[in-house]
Formats: sequence, structure tokens, C-alpha cells
Amino acid sequence: MTEKRVKAAVLLIGDELLSGRTQDVNLQTIAKFMAPLGVQIAEARVVADVPDEIVAAVNELRGKYDYVFTTGGIGPTHDDKTADAIAAAFGVGIDVHPEARAILEAHYKGPGNLNEARLRMARVPIGGDLVPNPVSKAPGFQMENVFVMAGVPSIMRGMLEGVGPRLKGGAVVRSRAVRGKSVREGDIAKGLEALENATNGAVTFGSYPWFGPEGYGLHLVARSADPAALDKAGDDLNALIRACGAEPEEVTELDPPRN
Amino acid sequence: MTEKRVKAAVLLIGDELLSGRTQDVNLQTIAKFMAPLGVQIAEARVVADVPDEIVAAVNELRGKYDYVFTTGGIGPTHDDKTADAIAAAFGVGIDVHPEARAILEAHYKGPGNLNEARLRMARVPIGGDLVPNPVSKAPGFQMENVFVMAGVPSIMRGMLEGVGPRLKGGAVVRSRAVRGKSVREGDIAKGLEALENATNGAVTFGSYPWFGPEGYGLHLVARSADPAALDKAGDDLNALIRACGAEPEEVTELDPPRN
Repeated sequence: MTEKRVKAAVLLIGDELLSGRTQDVNLQTIAKFMAPLGVQIAEARVVADVPDEIVAAVNELRGKYDYVFTTGGIGPTHDDKTADAIAAAFGVGIDVHPEARAILEAHYKGPGNLNEARLRMARVPIGGDLVPNPVSKAPGFQMENVFVMAGVPSIMRGMLEGVGPRLKGGAVVRSRAVRGKSVREGDIAKGLEALENATNGAVTFGSYPWFGPEGYGLHLVARSADPAALDKAGDDLNALIRACGAEPEEVTELDPPRN
Repeated sequence: MTEKRVKAAVLLIGDELLSGRTQDVNLQTIAKFMAPLGVQIAEARVVADVPDEIVAAVNELRGKYDYVFTTGGIGPTHDDKTADAIAAAFGVGIDVHPEARAILEAHYKGPGNLNEARLRMARVPIGGDLVPNPVSKAPGFQMENVFVMAGVPSIMRGMLEGVGPRLKGGAVVRSRAVRGKSVREGDIAKGLEALENATNGAVTFGSYPWFGPEGYGLHLVARSADPAALDKAGDDLNALIRACGAEPEEVTELDPPRN
């Protein structure tokens, strides 16, 4: 029996990601965290701090996928619009969550420290469950299949630890990657397609050229939820690179940023 | 008279961006390139190498925005599905473009070098105009308001140079950023909101906390298409940080990746 595929979307929220000011790193972090749990990221979107845009994206994605993970827009400043937008997307009100208030009261001790702005971070759509924030305390939250996390990468990573155990994953898609130096895509294209066709959809193959000071070459990647099929695919990729006269090199690390 | 805002979407195409294998850097490159041309990136999406998903995203985004910039999926291997998907999105056929073939023939000299796989890179939807590729020759293309570029960042950057002159930009949104060390969001939130409200929409303000070995603090960013309003906004941000007892520091570089 084929195990169910569980698919999710990532929604990155913030003007700074679209203006070019900030390089997102959260999508990759979430994808790497989810893969071994059997949750595949099938789509991602980046929207500005515009309530209508957030609402529309959340409602489309939560209907289409098993899970939605959002990052950004839950801080204390006026440009943090995500919590209200999530409430609007679910058609519910929003209020200070007693447990979230208690967390912030314990963290921001002393008269006047837990001011109106900071108390905004305790506002949660009605019916939401908190997601703990081990880094800076102000929690994220979960509304049904939507998990709302902070945008600062270190805080987001901390929140993922609380999200993971709440997910029901499916088939785990694993990959094998093989590097071939001085191999060109045009030389392996036909062979690579033949490999994919022979697997009847059990394995997908990707080809990613690289260029650098040490020359050029390819990474060939096989992805599959079937361990035996993936083993064979990895061996086939090695053979494909050898057929080009190059010595294949198994790659266990993820790619560095491509240039 | 207020100058028109010209808005665009970025569509990043590739399984490797969603599996966590590859860290995208093209969105930020495109956003930084477009900003001074008066083209604002208003939304971005990441989709897998799945034709139906690419078609749906292209058709939604090209109707919603002035321009769409896609990256990825135009190489010689079977997992490169973008050109066919763009043809399907526009309801046209696809064929080898004579000029693209000539470019590839000049580049892949010698018998058998321009094989069937490499010739795939000359296939362009009917009616498409080529976008030159100064890096590795195989061109991108333009269909109406959609620009289709390579996914490898160095090649994509080269193609942007050919795309820029074809765009009709609008108002140029500029920003000023001020750094405040040991300033916390909760301390400036009220003041920051008051600044934004006082500009009647002429300026938007964002607040971005940072944490690092040297401590913590904020970047406060003002964005506006009105140079005079932006000047005042920058001065107001300096005053806001001074009011917290910190010495503001004007930031002219973009942020490094946040941790």
C-alpha cells in the first residue's frame, strides 16, 4: 500500500522580503525540518504586510493543502498584521489570550514594561492554540491546520520544535544526490529522462548545473518515498555520470547557495 | 500628480526550492534590480516542476500584475517544464525559435554537440521574443508581460540586463533605514505607528529586530515614492531612536541574512 502524501504550503509575510531588503531563509529551514516528518512543502508564497493579501492567501492555501506554515508579522509594531489577518481569514474575533498574557507578564516584569504594544503579541484569534517560543517568549499560534510563526529566523526555528509534534505526516520523501564534475546537462538529458520514465512515477529526477572557481558540473538528484527504488536510482545516477567519463561523487550535504 | 505604481510578481519554479535542497537567492536579486526602475515586487510564489501548477500561477499573476518574472525550468533536461507551461498558459503552440537555434548552433559547434536535448533550449512559445543570455547563451524569452529566465543565479542576473530596458516603470519607491542598538520594538511601537499615521499613506514604516553576538536592536525602515516625505521620515526615525536613549546609525547597505 502506498503511504499517503501529506502536503503543506509556506506563506512568508513581510514587505522586507519583497523590497529586496531581506533575504528569506525560512522557506528552506521549514522544508528541511518537515521532510523527515513526512510533510512535503508543495508551494510557497511571499506576500506584503497587506491584510487583504494575507487573508486571500491563507484561505486559498489552507483549503488546498494539509497544513499551512506562516512566518512574519506577529510582533508588537503596527506593521505586524498577521494575527488580525488570520482571525479575518477564519471569520473569528481576536483577543488577548490569557496564557499568552501570563507568559508575557512573566517575561516583561516591572511596572510599564508590558505596555500596550507588547500586549499586542498576546492577541490570538478566538479558538487558537499557542505555539511556544523558547527564544523570545511571545508565542505563535495554531488555528486548525494553519501554524503562525515569527519571521526572525532564530525565533521561527524555535517555534518549529513545538509545531512538529502536532503534525500527522505521511510518506517520507528521501533523496540521493550525485555530483559529476565537467558533466554537462545536454549530455545526460536523454539518459536522465529514460531513468525517470522507467520508474513509473516512483522516482523523480532533477538536474542542477553548477559553476564555480573549480570549474562546472552537475548535481543529479533522485527523490522517492520508496527506499528500494531510491537505492536503485542512486546507483543509476552514478552509472549515468560514469558513462560521461566522469567519476561520480555522492553528495550528502545540501547545496550551498548557487551562484 | 502621483506617479503610477507599477507592480510585478516573481514566480520561482523548481522542486529543489521546495524540498529544501536549494536556497533561493533570485527573489532578492530581482527585487533589488527592479526597485530603481520603478517596478515594485508585490508578490512572489514558489511552485514545483508541475505543469498545471506553473500554468495556474502564471495565468493568475499575469492578470493581476503589470509584469511577471519567472526563474527556472528552461534547461535541456526533462525536469525543465517551464517553456511548455508558458505556452499552455497563453494557449499557443511551442516550436524551435530560428534565432535561438542560430545562437545555440554557434555555441555548440561540432557534429552531434547540438543534440536533441540542447535543442530543447531553443523551443519558445509561438509569439515569444528572446531574452539574451550573456552568460551561457541559451536564451530566455518574453511573452507579453511575462519574462521567463533561467534559475541559475548568475545566468538569471545576466538575463535581467536584457529585461530591464523593456520595462515601463512607475514611481520609484526608495527607503531609509536607521539602526538602533539595544532598542526594543515594544519601546518604539507607539511612536512608529504615530509616524505612519501622520503621513496619510505617503510613507510606510517597518520595524525589524536583530539579534547577534554584539547584542540586539532594531532596524527601522521608511519607504516612500515621495523624496521629501522620505527625508522627513528618516529624520523622524533618528529622533525616535534618540528618544530611547540610543544613538541612531543610518544604514545604507541592505541587511545581511537575519539569524
